[in-house]
Amino acid sequence: MKVVGGSNFFVGVVLLCLILFPICSLAEKKKPLRFGKGGSFKILQVADMHYADGKTTPCENVFPEQMATCSDLNTTAFLERMIHAEKPDLIVFTGDNIYASDSTDAAKSLDAAFAPAISSNIPWAAVLGNHDQESALSREGVMKHIVKLNNTLSLVNPVEARVIDGFGNYNLEVGGVEGSSFENKSVLNLYFLDSGDYSTVPSMIPGYGWIKPSQQFWFERTSKRLQRAYTAKPEAQKEPAPGLAYFHIPLPELKSLDKTNFTGVKQEGGIGISSASVNSGFFTTMVSAGDVKAVFNGHDHLNDFCGKLTGIQLCYAGGFGYHAYGLAGWARRARVVEVNLKKMEKGGWGAVNSIKTWKRLDDQHLTAIDSQVLWSKSSAGTP
Amino acid sequence: MKVVGGSNFFVGVVLLCLILFPICSLAEKKKPLRFGKGGSFKILQVADMHYADGKTTPCENVFPEQMATCSDLNTTAFLERMIHAEKPDLIVFTGDNIYASDSTDAAKSLDAAFAPAISSNIPWAAVLGNHDQESALSREGVMKHIVKLNNTLSLVNPVEARVIDGFGNYNLEVGGVEGSSFENKSVLNLYFLDSGDYSTVPSMIPGYGWIKPSQQFWFERTSKRLQRAYTAKPEAQKEPAPGLAYFHIPLPELKSLDKTNFTGVKQEGGIGISSASVNSGFFTTMVSAGDVKAVFNGHDHLNDFCGKLTGIQLCYAGGFGYHAYGLAGWARRARVVEVNLKKMEKGGWGAVNSIKTWKRLDDQHLTAIDSQVLWSKSSAGTP
Repeated sequence: MKVVGGSNFFVGVVLLCLILFPICSLAEKKKPLRFGKGGSFKILQVADMHYADGKTTPCENVFPEQMATCSDLNTTAFLERMIHAEKPDLIVFTGDNIYASDSTDAAKSLDAAFAPAISSNIPWAAVLGNHDQESALSREGVMKHIVKLNNTLSLVNPVEARVIDGFGNYNLEVGGVEGSSFENKSVLNLYFLDSGDYSTVPSMIPGYGWIKPSQQFWFERTSKRLQRAYTAKPEAQKEPAPGLAYFHIPLPELKSLDKTNFTGVKQEGGIGISSASVNSGFFTTMVSAGDVKAVFNGHDHLNDFCGKLTGIQLCYAGGFGYHAYGLAGWARRARVVEVNLKKMEKGGWGAVNSIKTWKRLDDQHLTAIDSQVLWSKSSAGTP
Repeated sequence: MKVVGGSNFFVGVVLLCLILFPICSLAEKKKPLRFGKGGSFKILQVADMHYADGKTTPCENVFPEQMATCSDLNTTAFLERMIHAEKPDLIVFTGDNIYASDSTDAAKSLDAAFAPAISSNIPWAAVLGNHDQESALSREGVMKHIVKLNNTLSLVNPVEARVIDGFGNYNLEVGGVEGSSFENKSVLNLYFLDSGDYSTVPSMIPGYGWIKPSQQFWFERTSKRLQRAYTAKPEAQKEPAPGLAYFHIPLPELKSLDKTNFTGVKQEGGIGISSASVNSGFFTTMVSAGDVKAVFNGHDHLNDFCGKLTGIQLCYAGGFGYHAYGLAGWARRARVVEVNLKKMEKGGWGAVNSIKTWKRLDDQHLTAIDSQVLWSKSSAGTP
């Protein structure tokens, strides 16, 4: 595990823990993310667990002979195996974490769904999908429950945004290697957004939700702030640190990708991409900001591709959960992203050099497929 | 002219004028817009004057025999005739007010371009196009010059928005008839936005500018504030007061309109709609806000249609200026909007009942064409 503190501030906080437990608990949650001594940072994306009541909740779309023994516990087992196999530095849950309409107790479903992440002691982050609030717990209630769980870095909303739509908009900074000249810089920026559930004006705009101006404005200001810090001394960089954005509902721009320019499959029924029926401009906002190199969505369980548009990789993770629609014979899967730093000539690690991804299938060997480079410093700037 | 004050506050300010001239001057500019005793409010839209140096600046795209005597002064004459014929309550200039690259002195060009409005004593408002800043005066400089001119209600930017992109984002409220139960309510809301000039990230996104998240967030908050006031007592209304939005560059959504569902013509070359090459979501933001019934753009001189999409009329004004590209034989034109209040059973005027529009051509009789109802209270809510 490469999540380490290291600053004097942190040592002070640890000492204070002996006296003040609440601060200790807060410090534990806020422990900064950081690249490890090996110069890499790995993120496991888990999309659409659709967790409900555990053992009594049946699977969907598995072979008939699997039904008798298949439940939410298969989702749990897959998550445990993925964590064990990949040993990620961060686990990101991109919504529909629970299928709340089938959940007897949403809080318990959330606890059970995230249990493997919690017990792994690996930091994790979550955003909401369109099914998380389909019980007594509202979207705000679900997010408030999540942020209290152990080892999560999730936030209900950023403290610096006085007004923002949705719940679960925040960012995380990943520092350079401890002891390197980048140790006090965020060399990788992670953005988490609430893409909503359904249209707030269904009589005019049908269908799914979208990322609102308040959220885009917050993203834009955050991106600018991070870019100012990254391009300032010491180790002033010319280009912004790469960013990755995680949210549930795909953008309408994914419709312009096809198998000639993506890796993976697009086999979701209907129109193939279940975005909002309107464009709310977040793709334009990200391109303008200039730092986001890849976007990771869930929502469409049967799509698992990555394709590049105007300099940004748009990626699905494929469906993870067993109590979620899927295809019998088409394995549940998860996406892994590995970000590697540049080895400096004088030794030590520098800024981000490359961002790679692959998926793993829930089969006997957790088969890795579709390995690809999403971004590399040498090819930066090509649309 | 139906722009009257009427409140005690206003009487006080007028008295203070005798003592403090600066406040008097400010009060003159800030005199609130209001429906007149006839229950109507008329707006003249002037798109793309493209003013430069006046008499020495030649016309474009007129018949060869007209060239010798045709100049910016034809634009001035057309504006004077329009003001005389329509006697509007407000004149709105939707950008490319000057064609600054052909202007010897941008400030003088602005003064001359707006001169007929200034001397008419009718309040006027302006936003920027993509050509207004093509001289020594920046976009900020042009807007700062405009707001100092007489009788304008233009603002550089709203005071309540701490951060906003562009110059010339503001709103105006039009009060109900003095003495009616709506006299202290804004029954018609006007939004003015800076749609930018060109892409700020041309290597990734080519072409024209767009309305940014900061502006959309301001619009959204302003719309919410106005709706709260309108639906509050006294005379608490169920629906928001109708809004009209004015900005230069058309939205990409106009591409989905065609002659089967619009009134007017679409004869701009190339792709027919010179919007930004990306969607920045402002159409979605307006539909979500729920109050804007019509949008008025310029930019494409050869388009003059209005077409309805998802409950919002999207309108061009057609080209107005003679030092702007056009078509010889296709008259320069302007759009008029007339908003009428509902006559109450007990007498007096109520809320807005209908929004009508027509255009006038710069021919001998200022021929009115394409009269149509853009919105009426009875048909509200139909997409």
